[in-house]
Amino acid sequence: MPAKPKALFFDVFGTLVDWRSGVAREARAVLGPKGFDLDWSAFADAWRGEYQPGMEEIRAGRQAFARLDVVHRRNLERILPRFGLEQTEEATRQALIHAWHKLDAWPDVTAGLAGLRPHALLAPVSNGNISLMADLARHNGIWWDAILGAEVAGDYKPKPRVYLASCEAFDLPPEACMMVAAHSADLAAAARCGLMTAHVARPDEHGASTGEAAPKVPVDVAVKELGELARWLGA
Amino acid sequence: MPAKPKALFFDVFGTLVDWRSGVAREARAVLGPKGFDLDWSAFADAWRGEYQPGMEEIRAGRQAFARLDVVHRRNLERILPRFGLEQTEEATRQALIHAWHKLDAWPDVTAGLAGLRPHALLAPVSNGNISLMADLARHNGIWWDAILGAEVAGDYKPKPRVYLASCEAFDLPPEACMMVAAHSADLAAAARCGLMTAHVARPDEHGASTGEAAPKVPVDVAVKELGELARWLGA
Repeated sequence: MPAKPKALFFDVFGTLVDWRSGVAREARAVLGPKGFDLDWSAFADAWRGEYQPGMEEIRAGRQAFARLDVVHRRNLERILPRFGLEQTEEATRQALIHAWHKLDAWPDVTAGLAGLRPHALLAPVSNGNISLMADLARHNGIWWDAILGAEVAGDYKPKPRVYLASCEAFDLPPEACMMVAAHSADLAAAARCGLMTAHVARPDEHGASTGEAAPKVPVDVAVKELGELARWLGA
Repeated sequence: MPAKPKALFFDVFGTLVDWRSGVAREARAVLGPKGFDLDWSAFADAWRGEYQPGMEEIRAGRQAFARLDVVHRRNLERILPRFGLEQTEEATRQALIHAWHKLDAWPDVTAGLAGLRPHALLAPVSNGNISLMADLARHNGIWWDAILGAEVAGDYKPKPRVYLASCEAFDLPPEACMMVAAHSADLAAAARCGLMTAHVARPDEHGASTGEAAPKVPVDVAVKELGELARWLGA
């Protein structure tokens, strides 16, 4: 068994929170009373579908860094016409962007993170901005040691700078830090930077049986839920 | 009474933690067993005395930004000869720098911050680096929403950028944020950026009756301890 990490870094969207049902629910709460009746899950999927292309403009250096709330706004503008929502007023657009600040954690997460606290420093290393991470933590009762990730690093995962800046913020070498995610690409990028890696199965991320039930890359540990990770760390 | 703030930003050294007795205690714990017998409070005062000059090199642009642990290291090198400690080995120097990560909070702080949590987002806006703030939070049972301040802003208080970057991180205008500090100069700088201000009396910061028992500048509220600030916010 490898040495145990001194810090655990968490991916958030998909790994800790259920973005799909949360965005669908919040979009319905915002747009339903205005008379719209969409396929709300399709709306969430379409918005999330613009996520990687939107960040890629910044990762590739074609656009200056902008926090994820701003990227979400740009991506929203892109999908509104597809759903007949191009007339949506400014306040409604703001409310939709804020949907991402109100997502529910998967059922194991709040207690799981509390169980991990005695073992290591805990921080989100997400592409979400600081206020988004702070709101999600409040909403779900999560006690972070710090909020790290894209806004602190000034770039988006899977760029190496995001992982390395997070290690540096805690004054730890990469090998003393572990990235925890439900996405093999995120873990592979972290491993290339020298971090340890833990895969969490989130098989229903994009709807039933659509997510990664197991890692597609070598990892230090693969678990079904966060309690299992705490037991591995305590072993 | 003015509108209530949505975020509270805290100065840390002197305002939340007792750096003087903590550094004296930790220095004694590190150096005492090696046969040194100093005036430990004078050692703490001398080290802290280099604090503003050390940061001024960075604020003035003569040195690139370096986190406070690095500035503490440079300042330690400066004072070691004054105490006959110039032969101190590397591991001991590291242990001394780590003294700043182990400071105790003033008696009202841990419960006071817990009482403030329902009222606003809470973050340190200190010149201390992220790992230093995270360690102090762990040591004292403090639950921050995020760690903001010098390392996130890339400059040191009282430069306006530090206050303004903190407001931006929470996506709030300055007038919705309140700086809480025991030092009038910090509060005056925050007020010039448009933030609300709260003064906390720490009359014994540099030894008995040496600190600010009351603000020297206009503030929105002045309190003797953090519980009083929670009552003001709840009124």
